[in-house]
Amino acid sequence: MQKSKQTVKDIIKNREKEFFDYLRLDSVSTQNRSIAPTVKYVTDLIVSTGGEAKVLDDLGGNPVVYGYFKADPKGNSEKTVLFYNHYDVQPEDPLDEWETDPFEPTVIDGKLFCRGVTDNKANFILRLYALEYLMQSEEGLPCNVKFLVEGEEENGSPNLDAYLEKYADLFDSDGCIWEFGGKNEKEQFVIETGVKGMAYFDLFAESADVDIHSSLGAVVDNAAWRLTHALASLRDKDNQVLVAGFYDNIEHPSGSAQKAVKERVVSEDKIAGIYGLKHPFITKDLEWSAEEALAFYPTMTICGLLSGYTEEGTKTVLPRKASAKLDCRLVPGQDPLKIEQLLRHHLDEHGFSDVELVLLKGQKAFRSDIDHPFVQTVKESADEVYGSHSEVVLSPTNPGTGPMYSFGKHLGIPVASSGCGHAEGKAHAPNESIRLKDFEEGTHHMIAFLKRFKEA
Amino acid sequence: MQKSKQTVKDIIKNREKEFFDYLRLDSVSTQNRSIAPTVKYVTDLIVSTGGEAKVLDDLGGNPVVYGYFKADPKGNSEKTVLFYNHYDVQPEDPLDEWETDPFEPTVIDGKLFCRGVTDNKANFILRLYALEYLMQSEEGLPCNVKFLVEGEEENGSPNLDAYLEKYADLFDSDGCIWEFGGKNEKEQFVIETGVKGMAYFDLFAESADVDIHSSLGAVVDNAAWRLTHALASLRDKDNQVLVAGFYDNIEHPSGSAQKAVKERVVSEDKIAGIYGLKHPFITKDLEWSAEEALAFYPTMTICGLLSGYTEEGTKTVLPRKASAKLDCRLVPGQDPLKIEQLLRHHLDEHGFSDVELVLLKGQKAFRSDIDHPFVQTVKESADEVYGSHSEVVLSPTNPGTGPMYSFGKHLGIPVASSGCGHAEGKAHAPNESIRLKDFEEGTHHMIAFLKRFKEA
Repeated sequence: MQKSKQTVKDIIKNREKEFFDYLRLDSVSTQNRSIAPTVKYVTDLIVSTGGEAKVLDDLGGNPVVYGYFKADPKGNSEKTVLFYNHYDVQPEDPLDEWETDPFEPTVIDGKLFCRGVTDNKANFILRLYALEYLMQSEEGLPCNVKFLVEGEEENGSPNLDAYLEKYADLFDSDGCIWEFGGKNEKEQFVIETGVKGMAYFDLFAESADVDIHSSLGAVVDNAAWRLTHALASLRDKDNQVLVAGFYDNIEHPSGSAQKAVKERVVSEDKIAGIYGLKHPFITKDLEWSAEEALAFYPTMTICGLLSGYTEEGTKTVLPRKASAKLDCRLVPGQDPLKIEQLLRHHLDEHGFSDVELVLLKGQKAFRSDIDHPFVQTVKESADEVYGSHSEVVLSPTNPGTGPMYSFGKHLGIPVASSGCGHAEGKAHAPNESIRLKDFEEGTHHMIAFLKRFKEA
Repeated sequence: MQKSKQTVKDIIKNREKEFFDYLRLDSVSTQNRSIAPTVKYVTDLIVSTGGEAKVLDDLGGNPVVYGYFKADPKGNSEKTVLFYNHYDVQPEDPLDEWETDPFEPTVIDGKLFCRGVTDNKANFILRLYALEYLMQSEEGLPCNVKFLVEGEEENGSPNLDAYLEKYADLFDSDGCIWEFGGKNEKEQFVIETGVKGMAYFDLFAESADVDIHSSLGAVVDNAAWRLTHALASLRDKDNQVLVAGFYDNIEHPSGSAQKAVKERVVSEDKIAGIYGLKHPFITKDLEWSAEEALAFYPTMTICGLLSGYTEEGTKTVLPRKASAKLDCRLVPGQDPLKIEQLLRHHLDEHGFSDVELVLLKGQKAFRSDIDHPFVQTVKESADEVYGSHSEVVLSPTNPGTGPMYSFGKHLGIPVASSGCGHAEGKAHAPNESIRLKDFEEGTHHMIAFLKRFKEA
């Protein structure tokens, strides 16, 4: 009996319900929601696509799903690629800003809206579709494919390093396709080959056991003022970090990396339009460009502030406590634990020894060698798929964060991204989406890559 | 038929249900809760105690209740005292810190817990009890008594000035007993004869139409940082307000007022114990004492902060907006509208013209002449009731705020407080309470005052 040949469009259509059910799982790792059913779902998806799957959970944290698809013997390929994805998603708040149900996949004007769709459930799904397409083709699967699908990426992947260290042989491969990627605000297809690291902190100030009538503000200290002054001491209003040593030991990017960044032009107008920015880029008064800032410079972001009365109207209260969330995006050469020490030292030296600092997650940055043949194969296959209508760009460092450093350290492999994201995809924000056209093209890119990779 | 004579204890016992039902009304003015039923309840209480009542609502805002109790003709007194009270209460949040239901009056170890009990429903009730006691006595009510019970005190009394202006004749009297008062942390009975004013602001910063993935923090401005720096520019970490002109035009207190404040000693240890303070008084490094700060110096308090992600764990987001609530307690000579102008000017001059500033409520401060005979009568009657076990102290300015300025301006009368509050009463905070012993004594003070006032 002859195997019926499906097109990519057929596969997308036939497996839509399966994809949408995956999106419906509210696998918010920071809130420990729906982890077990999602692990089962991911495992089942790998198996139903024709692979082997194994759940690794002996090192703590949310389970890591390993998947394996063996190359068709006809091809005689010894090559193995590792697909890194994650099944967890960001929290969906603020709920009132969603125009659709955050966990009900909804198609509007060629876009698919759902929490986690661009970051990164769709990218996992389209890799499975590429495998299904190739396995039913005459040549069969041209190389070996492994999956590592983890469930704590949105929480800083605190346990992934341990799994990669212990299971380095299991995940051994020749290169890694990263979980994210896609098109930027100028519709260029961007291949990211590095990421920034992160040091994410809680800060707490406390002034009393209870909230106090604010008339006592004449004599009683105020947690909100303490925290405000502590934060203001960390970064000036011109956006320079003031913590001594923060910018020390930053590794200089390679010539190729610098050249690649110099050739890119970030469109401030387009980004301002997408997000409705109220102010110019903060780099306008800095010594480095927006492109350099995104690729090569660390950040310090207040992600949240909370103290006292925050409803409508007035309440005259001295808040007993205040808290802030602070996110530093790091670059190669910076160590989250060292950054924690520097911040602690800074707070102590500036009279804020009472302000508590807690490192919630830390990750080091990573940059692949963009001249590596694996990276070049990802680029060439992208040129093949996207080249007719989109420029393909190699980016040395994505401004976002992921656990790439551990892949370099334990597996010694280069990393490159391929995904179906778009510039208005609103990862981590309300109304997250992908464009269905990008989803189909992304599947084609994975097919083209796997064919070329066999030879690379 | 002879009228049966009740003791104060009898009255307290007989009318307990009526009092508790008043406490059960969650009359939170800033959230517009239960205003109409509370107005009716207050009116009914005045009438059932034997007075006349009228609801004034022609000038907007929550209604003002006028009450009138005519002096017994036997006494030949022309004197009229005005009792100022309010029927509204503060919001009850944070709910999880209450040990009892905030709107269910609960007696534990001689204390009565309920939102609004000390601020100031109990003081209104005990004045009614004093009237009932005197009206059933042989001499009858020794002077005329008027009530002004408003419903927007916790919202800055935005409409009271207009009512006092229009109804100045209706409320015409010889002196005003203020709504609050009671014992301090050293068990002294304190009679307040002035209040601070207030300028309460919302501050808003905005950086985008949507929350954004924090990796873009390398180039995109951040509302939380903007607001943090704007706030930090307003007051230094040594608690001095940095807004140019803020301390200008402050009126020097009279010699008697200065003397009265110099004689007082605020117990930092006791206050620290009551509230569980984590830091010493902020006046320790200032040029003025804690006592002077509380009576004669303005404050600037952050009452609330809100921006971005504030739950457990991490969310890597550039918040699109940030907001703060800022409460300035003012002293005589400062004008809330002028303070608003100074803050606006300061923000503009310091590069924060994008930070929105909204004056939510403004009130001027007021100080009575503490040598006035009315004030002295309040003091003498307090000596009579409290003198055997508590020192009685005249205070020129309470650190709190109330609409006293309008009483001085439109009625031209001195003001003095008498209440049943205690230092651990937690006004505006969870677990607000009075002590039942103070409630009974407060009733006796009002009886003693009304008897003496006839002659004053």
